[in-house]
Amino acid sequence: MVRVYGDGLSGNCYKVKLLMALLDIEHQWTHVDILSGETKSDDFARLNANRKIPVLQLDSGEILTESNAILNYLAEGTSFSPDSSLARARVLEWQFFEQYSHEPFIAVARYIKRYLGLPEERRADYEAKQVGGHKALAVMEQKLADAEYLVGEAPTIADISLYAYTHVAHEGGFDLAPYASIRAWIARIEALPGYVAMASSGS
Amino acid sequence: MVRVYGDGLSGNCYKVKLLMALLDIEHQWTHVDILSGETKSDDFARLNANRKIPVLQLDSGEILTESNAILNYLAEGTSFSPDSSLARARVLEWQFFEQYSHEPFIAVARYIKRYLGLPEERRADYEAKQVGGHKALAVMEQKLADAEYLVGEAPTIADISLYAYTHVAHEGGFDLAPYASIRAWIARIEALPGYVAMASSGS
Repeated sequence: MVRVYGDGLSGNCYKVKLLMALLDIEHQWTHVDILSGETKSDDFARLNANRKIPVLQLDSGEILTESNAILNYLAEGTSFSPDSSLARARVLEWQFFEQYSHEPFIAVARYIKRYLGLPEERRADYEAKQVGGHKALAVMEQKLADAEYLVGEAPTIADISLYAYTHVAHEGGFDLAPYASIRAWIARIEALPGYVAMASSGS
Repeated sequence: MVRVYGDGLSGNCYKVKLLMALLDIEHQWTHVDILSGETKSDDFARLNANRKIPVLQLDSGEILTESNAILNYLAEGTSFSPDSSLARARVLEWQFFEQYSHEPFIAVARYIKRYLGLPEERRADYEAKQVGGHKALAVMEQKLADAEYLVGEAPTIADISLYAYTHVAHEGGFDLAPYASIRAWIARIEALPGYVAMASSGS
């Protein structure tokens, strides 16, 4: 059985948990406490030299890291990964957008506000993250204004990747009220059969 | 014929140029001047709402963005994309590592030093980028200490993605002297048939 090393509080780990629930993939979950610094230990570095979660361990013992690489691996051959070559490239387009233009703003603002309590010395950083985060939300809103999902007519791992931190963006100070299409898309994801919510405390 | 909108000075654009040279893919190149802010224009936003290069335009007129998504699309079915599902996921693992843990440090430090001339108000930012950049280089060095390429026994688009900014890391203040395995890997990439160098001035 595959094993995931992760923390339910992390959106990057939640992506894997959500896809596994939607696809009903049996797995074991080993909690790695991100807030207490467990990912920074030398023990953990033997699993992932880059000291980040999630980590997927296959039956063979082989290790795969990076949330979006794990999603692509698990979704291959399922409806969450499109059939056409161009559509699969579009999934990757959204996932690279997520890691470069979305997560570093929205997830980091959420970390500064929710977990650090928005200390004065991080306020300038937090404000800068608001600008980049709203740019990313505007790109998503433009796409979702005339599409139900990010790629094609059905949910894919692109939606899962973007949903993870978008649906908790308010915890990073992002008011989603002006983004009607994003809110409708969030409701569509949450209505998928097998959907599980993100943890609100460590698990 | 496919068209690339890009700037040869950008490592993200150079990834596409290098793969196209190695695979001998005929294409047209439209120069978009990144330093003069052409990617920020409203005209350009009609090509890519996220206002970034490179952009690939297919014969059908369809648009694909994000350098690493473009590489995956172009490499499909070639030796630069591995056959096995796990190996393809490992390619993605390195490409997501590149966009999250490597490029934001090494490419941004290079931009601050080479293009902005390291102004005093960016010095703290530049110094912070050094720490993250050396972490990323250490992860690569550890992998390449006992492997010729990042994934499997032959060059893949993972190598192209990481090579782009690694081989000009010195322009961002990163001394590669301590990274012997990375230097040997750079030499291997540069010896590939069809290899083209990165532009050193706008093109």
